[in-house]
Amino acid sequence: MPKFRITFHPSERSISVDGEENLLQAAMEAGIHINASCGGSATCGKCKIKLLEGTVVSSKHPKLSQWEYDQGYRLACLTSIRSDVEVEIPVESQVDKSVLKLKGDREAHKYLLSPQDIYQLVPGWEVDPAVFKRYVELDPPSLKDNGSDLSRLINGLAHQHGIEGVSADFRVIMKLSHILRQSDWKVTATLVLTKKGYKLVHVEPGDNTRRNYSIVIDIGTTTIFGQLLDLNGCVVVACPGGQCDGSTLFALAEASDYNGQISYGEDVITRIVYSERPGGLKKMQEVVISTINKIIQELLEMSHIEGSLISHLVIAGNTTMTQLFLGLDPKYVREEPYVPTANFIPPVRAIHLGINIGDHVHIYTFPMVASYIGGDIVAGILGSGVFQRETLTLYMDIGTNGEIVLGNRDWLASVSCSAGPAFEGAGIKFGMRATRGAIEEVSINDRTYEPMLLTIGRSKPIGICGSGLIDTVAELLETGMIDQNGKFRGDLSTDRVRKGPDGYEYVLARKEETLFREDIVLTEIDIQNLIRTKASMYAGCKVLLDSVGLSFREVEQVIIAGGFGRHLDLEKAIFIGLLPELDIEKFIFVGNGSLLGARLLSFSKNLLKETERIALMMTNLELSNHPTFMNEFIAAMFLPHTDSSAFPQVMKRLHRTRKEYGAERMLEGQL
Amino acid sequence: MPKFRITFHPSERSISVDGEENLLQAAMEAGIHINASCGGSATCGKCKIKLLEGTVVSSKHPKLSQWEYDQGYRLACLTSIRSDVEVEIPVESQVDKSVLKLKGDREAHKYLLSPQDIYQLVPGWEVDPAVFKRYVELDPPSLKDNGSDLSRLINGLAHQHGIEGVSADFRVIMKLSHILRQSDWKVTATLVLTKKGYKLVHVEPGDNTRRNYSIVIDIGTTTIFGQLLDLNGCVVVACPGGQCDGSTLFALAEASDYNGQISYGEDVITRIVYSERPGGLKKMQEVVISTINKIIQELLEMSHIEGSLISHLVIAGNTTMTQLFLGLDPKYVREEPYVPTANFIPPVRAIHLGINIGDHVHIYTFPMVASYIGGDIVAGILGSGVFQRETLTLYMDIGTNGEIVLGNRDWLASVSCSAGPAFEGAGIKFGMRATRGAIEEVSINDRTYEPMLLTIGRSKPIGICGSGLIDTVAELLETGMIDQNGKFRGDLSTDRVRKGPDGYEYVLARKEETLFREDIVLTEIDIQNLIRTKASMYAGCKVLLDSVGLSFREVEQVIIAGGFGRHLDLEKAIFIGLLPELDIEKFIFVGNGSLLGARLLSFSKNLLKETERIALMMTNLELSNHPTFMNEFIAAMFLPHTDSSAFPQVMKRLHRTRKEYGAERMLEGQL
Repeated sequence: MPKFRITFHPSERSISVDGEENLLQAAMEAGIHINASCGGSATCGKCKIKLLEGTVVSSKHPKLSQWEYDQGYRLACLTSIRSDVEVEIPVESQVDKSVLKLKGDREAHKYLLSPQDIYQLVPGWEVDPAVFKRYVELDPPSLKDNGSDLSRLINGLAHQHGIEGVSADFRVIMKLSHILRQSDWKVTATLVLTKKGYKLVHVEPGDNTRRNYSIVIDIGTTTIFGQLLDLNGCVVVACPGGQCDGSTLFALAEASDYNGQISYGEDVITRIVYSERPGGLKKMQEVVISTINKIIQELLEMSHIEGSLISHLVIAGNTTMTQLFLGLDPKYVREEPYVPTANFIPPVRAIHLGINIGDHVHIYTFPMVASYIGGDIVAGILGSGVFQRETLTLYMDIGTNGEIVLGNRDWLASVSCSAGPAFEGAGIKFGMRATRGAIEEVSINDRTYEPMLLTIGRSKPIGICGSGLIDTVAELLETGMIDQNGKFRGDLSTDRVRKGPDGYEYVLARKEETLFREDIVLTEIDIQNLIRTKASMYAGCKVLLDSVGLSFREVEQVIIAGGFGRHLDLEKAIFIGLLPELDIEKFIFVGNGSLLGARLLSFSKNLLKETERIALMMTNLELSNHPTFMNEFIAAMFLPHTDSSAFPQVMKRLHRTRKEYGAERMLEGQL
Repeated sequence: MPKFRITFHPSERSISVDGEENLLQAAMEAGIHINASCGGSATCGKCKIKLLEGTVVSSKHPKLSQWEYDQGYRLACLTSIRSDVEVEIPVESQVDKSVLKLKGDREAHKYLLSPQDIYQLVPGWEVDPAVFKRYVELDPPSLKDNGSDLSRLINGLAHQHGIEGVSADFRVIMKLSHILRQSDWKVTATLVLTKKGYKLVHVEPGDNTRRNYSIVIDIGTTTIFGQLLDLNGCVVVACPGGQCDGSTLFALAEASDYNGQISYGEDVITRIVYSERPGGLKKMQEVVISTINKIIQELLEMSHIEGSLISHLVIAGNTTMTQLFLGLDPKYVREEPYVPTANFIPPVRAIHLGINIGDHVHIYTFPMVASYIGGDIVAGILGSGVFQRETLTLYMDIGTNGEIVLGNRDWLASVSCSAGPAFEGAGIKFGMRATRGAIEEVSINDRTYEPMLLTIGRSKPIGICGSGLIDTVAELLETGMIDQNGKFRGDLSTDRVRKGPDGYEYVLARKEETLFREDIVLTEIDIQNLIRTKASMYAGCKVLLDSVGLSFREVEQVIIAGGFGRHLDLEKAIFIGLLPELDIEKFIFVGNGSLLGARLLSFSKNLLKETERIALMMTNLELSNHPTFMNEFIAAMFLPHTDSSAFPQVMKRLHRTRKEYGAERMLEGQL
């Protein structure tokens, strides 16, 4: 095949390809990002590019309007090149990093949660990290006392600090003789508590005990978050009476970035599919490690900490993300019966995975429970304190996937719901992640049916994110524009509801208001997708409760985790039946529970042990062959639910508003 | 500096050098071997080369005769190049591998010691290796049972073989999912028992339990020996009644080669000195690993075993050899107060050191006790069974260095003697290793003073090795040609004794009988060097015994180890006072005790534990500042010893022979 050149604008990067490859593949391989939530299978319609110059062959696609086609827009995944070409990646096909940037710009010494919040969630622990430094002053050897350098150091640790049974990493031994003598036998040892006792991983000259840091990383399918922590905890502010009240436990820096893998598809399945290509697994690993390296670099720069002072790296992620990070083929995670390679990962030397950090740093990987209950959930159960509670708690992580854990300090059960990441924008015509230009809040006037929109960054709207979606559907329902099946009334006196190519749709923003001169609409199909997702979450909770003979009434606390959770309007989420109708006081939002857990684990060896206990204790319920799940799912495919007794307040409100709008007949027709 | 070319004959290899380098250095760096026991410091006079063509600058040296100088012989270490040159490396400056070759040619299925011998030395153990294979058949996963692949395997090992608490090597995890499915859930797991429990290091498809091999390597300063062992022990011959009587425990192959480091000096000190040059440590490591790789290759070829079936690599060597092998700087081993880097080395993955073997193979390094009591001695104590004996045993390893261990199953004490490796030929004018052309047996006619010589390979003599040296001195003493101080009588009626450049000397072979047309002589200086060496060994034994309040009389067994031990004439060694005068029945020769121990350890996890116990139990006595060692050493600088009561039989014989030769007056004058 002949070779052609593609030049991408606005980056001006250009690559050489043969005519066999489609444009999306070629861009992926060159590391140039074009949004494509379906991973290139021509279903999501997100990978729009605009042809500026040159010849291509590209089929039409229903996701592309005639206007767009006429303007030169094509789907990259359907486009093959027939000459040198110049293409533009329009803003809606690019990754918008501005939202992440805003976080990065915050001042370095930043409380993530207030210390009070931390103590409220997980009380009763103290700063005593599993990776710690101890200073020893050794007697130099003499002819009467000329044991090996290593035994001298190990004896010093035993006598001066009471640390027994230390084994040494071979890399420590390699440098030991010189360091001991250079430092006049005064050194700082870095030790790690492992399941098999203490391991000596690093020796530095002089007293360096006050400089001991860890980095914790949450590998999300979409976003990777990192924090740099001071493992000595209280170093800046003296605590009253020498007692640590936790108020000075902070992250010295935090940074985040999109997981570089999003160029290869937005959900775990597309990543797994990509990893099954020749070289695909290696590529997926390289890409995520490259993102992590960038974050580590940024954390070090922000905190002005030398990389050599980082002693520990803690990683939490869902099972697929963890396997791809470690280079473990996730093929069987995806295939029934959904088997991960390993739930407990031994310590891995970070440099062996290509991470730019000291060669003594080992990775603690949060243990996993099942293919769809990963280390991020175990970390969340740790970080939110569920493992300590006596009260019956429901933990819901609502993100690209939905994971639910039920239990308390004595038992834990989990399910995962794979109804599609509608909240992240996938399967929604104008769906997008919660980035600049996303409609995040919506209210609809109950007389005029005109919407009021708020977008992220207050810019012109580009699409709609998860919280905007929930708002819109809740408002459409409350104003009676849709029925409890999510179907539009055909008799409304507004041109906001109209018939589109996919059936009825609601015009959220008219083209003259939007960035891309195109109406932003929510279609009945979008609403069906949202209903499927919320039904799946609700049914998951229900089956989990049923499986242990409990009901929603007995749930004493609901913890909502996930990036999504931060933007969620609780009342509206209950109104559409995504969340159960419980006393609002019972809900807590913890944001990124995974990162919180990773952070706590870094600070406390007891919590590290608790983490293993959590993973071992948690029983996963597989929904795919569960006898009642499908019934529960179908029962929940209604707004808020076919069982109106489970949502008495919502039903009361619906009846009231419907009466007001004279929609009662319609409502009752549905029941 | 200008670049010149050196062509070496007979190999015809040529290298390019600048005029700065001396010829020996240049050859070393190019990996071309020229004997140089002093490592290139112009003291040993062994690095003779013959200039065939070209211009060099090369000073004269007392070790080079005028005849040699006129013939074009030069010392390589004193030679710098001024033009392209052609040089010959004469046979005496080459490594003679023919002696090693003879061993390599023996048939593959070779008993090293007869099983009876093994059982006599170390009774009461059974074949139960620390690295072992177990076959498991697992139930495939289902939706009701979809735990991780690793937990399925670990549970299988627990349920089917009762092996609990297994942790997995990360490299196993990397390949696990595919292997389990390819093999239809029927796999063979390789497990290693470590101090911290069982570790899963390898998984193979199908039942491979019968194919489990280890390689054991003894890294000597001069020679490296290797054996390939079948860890199942009894696979070829069915044992009567299913009971293993040990008779089928064998090495499938054995191979040996000179340690490639001998090009850089013959003793440990010259190696340490070389390793302190820039890049020297790395070079020393590469060179020894290259020799080991050659031996492994040869073992695999001889035994027709695939490399992937080797599960374990066991290494024993003295402390310096071990440190160089591991890349640990041995600088402080050499410098007072003689401190090794570490006595216990954690398992190291063999491929990380550059060893060509499966990536799952970890190295078990025999633990060390002190800078001059290494893993080879610990292995010898294991292999010779000293650690099990109730009887008081003296273990002497006589090689490049001399190491002595005293004790029994309850206690062990050691010393090392660094009086110079006279037995290996160093410090002896015509000294050489026990290779082809070395005079190994000598008897001298007591009337004519004419010698009868036997050389290795029965070829023309080139020099004299350790056993020839002991024979000669014992014969010179017995015939009254030298006195107990090792000084020649001046009044003998033979031209075999004459005055040479270094004082009196005995002509062992006249130039017309030798390979190099030069008289082979033993000088008074040579005899003094031998006396120093033997005095050091004897004094070491004496101080060791004294330190625990015991005497030679109480020693119930003497075990002689070391390559040297195989050729030693026991009576003559006692006659000159190298060995104590004890009942001949008390002596055992075990040959390479280190290899024997390494082999036993491979076969038995209990013996592996015993090994750790031996190393921890052994107390090393440092002779260099010992209050009585110097006195004991001086007292032993006499043939056989100044304390004649310690050698009553020798003295009786000396008196008798001296009377016969009328030498009594002389003898008594010395006492």
